[in-house]
Amino acid sequence: MEKGENTVIEDDVTIGAFVRIGHLVVIKQYTIIGDYVVIKDGAVAGQRPLSNKKMARKPSDGLPPLVIGDHVSIGSGTVLYEAVNVQSGVLIGDLASIREKVTIGEDSIIGRNAVVENNTTIGQRVTIQTSAYVTADMTIEDDVFIGPCVSTSNDKYMGEGQVKHQGPILKKGCKIGNNATLLPGVEIGEHAVVGAGAVVTKDVEAGTTVVGSPARRL
Amino acid sequence: MEKGENTVIEDDVTIGAFVRIGHLVVIKQYTIIGDYVVIKDGAVAGQRPLSNKKMARKPSDGLPPLVIGDHVSIGSGTVLYEAVNVQSGVLIGDLASIREKVTIGEDSIIGRNAVVENNTTIGQRVTIQTSAYVTADMTIEDDVFIGPCVSTSNDKYMGEGQVKHQGPILKKGCKIGNNATLLPGVEIGEHAVVGAGAVVTKDVEAGTTVVGSPARRL
Amino acid sequence: MEKGENTVIEDDVTIGAFVRIGHLVVIKQYTIIGDYVVIKDGAVAGQRPLSNKKMARKPSDGLPPLVIGDHVSIGSGTVLYEAVNVQSGVLIGDLASIREKVTIGEDSIIGRNAVVENNTTIGQRVTIQTSAYVTADMTIEDDVFIGPCVSTSNDKYMGEGQVKHQGPILKKGCKIGNNATLLPGVEIGEHAVVGAGAVVTKDVEAGTTVVGSPARRL
Repeated sequence: MEKGENTVIEDDVTIGAFVRIGHLVVIKQYTIIGDYVVIKDGAVAGQRPLSNKKMARKPSDGLPPLVIGDHVSIGSGTVLYEAVNVQSGVLIGDLASIREKVTIGEDSIIGRNAVVENNTTIGQRVTIQTSAYVTADMTIEDDVFIGPCVSTSNDKYMGEGQVKHQGPILKKGCKIGNNATLLPGVEIGEHAVVGAGAVVTKDVEAGTTVVGSPARRL
Repeated sequence: MEKGENTVIEDDVTIGAFVRIGHLVVIKQYTIIGDYVVIKDGAVAGQRPLSNKKMARKPSDGLPPLVIGDHVSIGSGTVLYEAVNVQSGVLIGDLASIREKVTIGEDSIIGRNAVVENNTTIGQRVTIQTSAYVTADMTIEDDVFIGPCVSTSNDKYMGEGQVKHQGPILKKGCKIGNNATLLPGVEIGEHAVVGAGAVVTKDVEAGTTVVGSPARRL
Repeated sequence: MEKGENTVIEDDVTIGAFVRIGHLVVIKQYTIIGDYVVIKDGAVAGQRPLSNKKMARKPSDGLPPLVIGDHVSIGSGTVLYEAVNVQSGVLIGDLASIREKVTIGEDSIIGRNAVVENNTTIGQRVTIQTSAYVTADMTIEDDVFIGPCVSTSNDKYMGEGQVKHQGPILKKGCKIGNNATLLPGVEIGEHAVVGAGAVVTKDVEAGTTVVGSPARRL
């Protein structure tokens, strides 16, 4: 292992072979890191969730550790929580953050400054571009493309509480253009395309393209 | 106080009881921290403003310190400036940043990656979701909900200078959907609702709902 | 030079006169820093690019160093790559990130949390506001104003690969309102204005104003 200066590795961490960890990194207790992993300067791996009185759903105690697969690369200043499973070959850009109870499938890319909330599953070979926002309780199948600055949501009553949250469902191979807005629970069908800047208020059929505000079929 | 490794606490800092400060944190001079505060790894508390020649308004010298109330939690990599007043029970997510001359009322939440500019007042029990952008010179009353990726602005001449800036005014209990765009100085009335992706170009009456681009009453 | 605590300066770094570097900063090998530069706590200067199998374009090896001109100020938690040329008088806000092969002209401002991708040229006295996203392969001429949360893109086939990417071309003095969406390759003419929240799907003539989704001439 290469390890930079002033990096903090807590107890009970497992680190594979040929791992390179930068300067001023934090690896929290129990984190498991595979082989050939790169973690850049200033990243935090294995963070525990925070909460306050107003939060609808408190984070659980006793979550499993962060598991980072082989050949994963993690950018500078990125914050990864515990109970995240980053599969092999994934790239996570600088200043991204990934909350608890998230799986990221093999060879996917999470862009710089992107945010992934808790309880979301991301397939294989998915691209989530820079500054995109992936809400909680969302499903993203294999080969999906999410453009830069895409915004998603999961709470149609906006903070009233006491209702089930459901994020968008992105089926295999669909593509979402930059700065598009997806409302809670909409399903984007297989290989469908959402244009840049579209506001998607209802489901989009497989193989179709929608654009505009509200989004309509081309 | 618990204090992590390689954390830097400058002189003349006041720290209450039962405070937990992570690794690689910076607490700047004169910062005041209450009881039961949690500050996660890599946060910077009490930063001084920067400026250059082109900035319309230079930051003042001799600002008061950052004051963090009791039971406040602050995420990893977050940057808080001096002259910020964070009242008790507030939660600030990872990688957020809050500029000078801002007050955040009790039990409010500032989401991860959210940005709050200078000279803005935020009420109690306000939720500002992940990656939302709160401009300078903005007023946010109690119980407001600002969805993820909401964008606000305060300068209708876009950098011409020499004009008064005015951010949106969000009245008590209004709700703004994700990725909505608010133009300078618009007032969103009490308990009004702005739909996701809407572009709000004029005032919204209390208790009404607007959607679309430009936003119109439902 | 003033240097904070636990800051890491790698070998072969050149640092000018009257430079102030904060705590917990990383300056990577070969970085060149001019006179009167300020670098705030937690910034990373001179980072090397990452890649994985799925990335269309691998970063080059053997890039030139990061060069920071005189009187430049860099915020907390900001990540600057190698092969970036930051000219004199530039201000870069907190938690911003700038990728390789980018030039930022004199006295320009890069806002907090803004992201600039690789291979983009930014002129003099440009303002890029908070949380704006500047894609790769983009040209930004002198005196341009990019509002908060503006989103740009350069890949009209969204990740299919094998096609030339072209970001928007922003001509001298044009202004882009907050949260506007610019599609790949659109040209915004000299002193043209794009309204807040507009979705720009085709070129905008010099001196004109466009608004709406899709954007149309006022």
